[in-house]
Amino acid sequence: MIQKFFTLELKTNGQKLYEFTQNTIDWINKYNFKNGIINLSIQHTSASLIVQENADPDVQKDLINYFNNLVPMDNKLYIHTTEGKDDMPAHIKSSITNNQISLSIKNGKLLLGTWQGIYLFEHRINPQTRSIIHHFLGEI
Amino acid sequence: MIQKFFTLELKTNGQKLYEFTQNTIDWINKYNFKNGIINLSIQHTSASLIVQENADPDVQKDLINYFNNLVPMDNKLYIHTTEGKDDMPAHIKSSITNNQISLSIKNGKLLLGTWQGIYLFEHRINPQTRSIIHHFLGEI
Amino acid sequence: MIQKFFTLELKTNGQKLYEFTQNTIDWINKYNFKNGIINLSIQHTSASLIVQENADPDVQKDLINYFNNLVPMDNKLYIHTTEGKDDMPAHIKSSITNNQISLSIKNGKLLLGTWQGIYLFEHRINPQTRSIIHHFLGEI
Repeated sequence: MIQKFFTLELKTNGQKLYEFTQNTIDWINKYNFKNGIINLSIQHTSASLIVQENADPDVQKDLINYFNNLVPMDNKLYIHTTEGKDDMPAHIKSSITNNQISLSIKNGKLLLGTWQGIYLFEHRINPQTRSIIHHFLGEI
Repeated sequence: MIQKFFTLELKTNGQKLYEFTQNTIDWINKYNFKNGIINLSIQHTSASLIVQENADPDVQKDLINYFNNLVPMDNKLYIHTTEGKDDMPAHIKSSITNNQISLSIKNGKLLLGTWQGIYLFEHRINPQTRSIIHHFLGEI
Repeated sequence: MIQKFFTLELKTNGQKLYEFTQNTIDWINKYNFKNGIINLSIQHTSASLIVQENADPDVQKDLINYFNNLVPMDNKLYIHTTEGKDDMPAHIKSSITNNQISLSIKNGKLLLGTWQGIYLFEHRINPQTRSIIHHFLGEI
């Protein structure tokens, strides 16, 4: 069994979904991981990791709109308001979605469905740099 | 350390919770997995995996009703509408719940609470065939 | 590769976030785990596990308020009401958040962001005892 670690840094520019499926696949290919688990964890509590459809980009727009309606950016609703109107909603959205995902690799292939992509879901308005730890545990 | 893979295919028939705890346990018993992790991942973005109470079936009805109220099947709310009024809500519900769960096995026993069951949560109205990958990493 | 198991029992006293990051770190240090995954799973369906900000305690208050507004404790909304007005909302909140998290350990260090803590999110009003299974898979 081997283990490898890699931190993917992504720059974000507003509330969007940023796909990084190919970055993860490139890392798998670089080290020829054969079978194992990749544990992904984002080191922040105001952005999320989600697996979503990568076919129609309108799905992403609808997701962003939906979450902004579900968790309004309205400081009157929150106590924690010092970091901006988008900060507390970002923490809530991060609790509703995920900050960690484990993916399986079989025979060198990341086991995602045909239409699935891995995304960073940015909940803050201003530009951020986000660290997504990749941790492989398995065999080459 | 050994690794094994198995794809469970479940046919669904509408918005319900479909329990598959026993299928997972049967697979563990078939190969005598002793200690390890089973990583479950669903290969679709319009259905989810959740661990929920398996005692009172009314809990499942309430969950389905709640999620249908939280994410209305109303095409006026969404841009992505070409695949039916239940499709975009299905993607949103999948983001709110989970598409991946890691379970622990100790001494051949799946570590779930007394009242916990593993469910496929189907968000589409029409019949579907869903693939749930089971990936064991551990020892026999 | 080694595997270890540990069940953390936490007593709760109402709808709050209970941090247990230090308990997890103490367990890692006790056995000198070097690299690996800790799979955390809560053995209940009316409380959750979440990773959240541990800097400003107001974030936790806002989270609790938000979830109580999102999932009202109003028995008129639910069929499953025999276990109290907070029980069905607790199951729903548990589906919206997480009952399982996998954490990575590298060189003996739990890979959490600077402001991240691990919490039990209790959704029931009355005192409870909650079991959180810790399962390490990796190397010393």
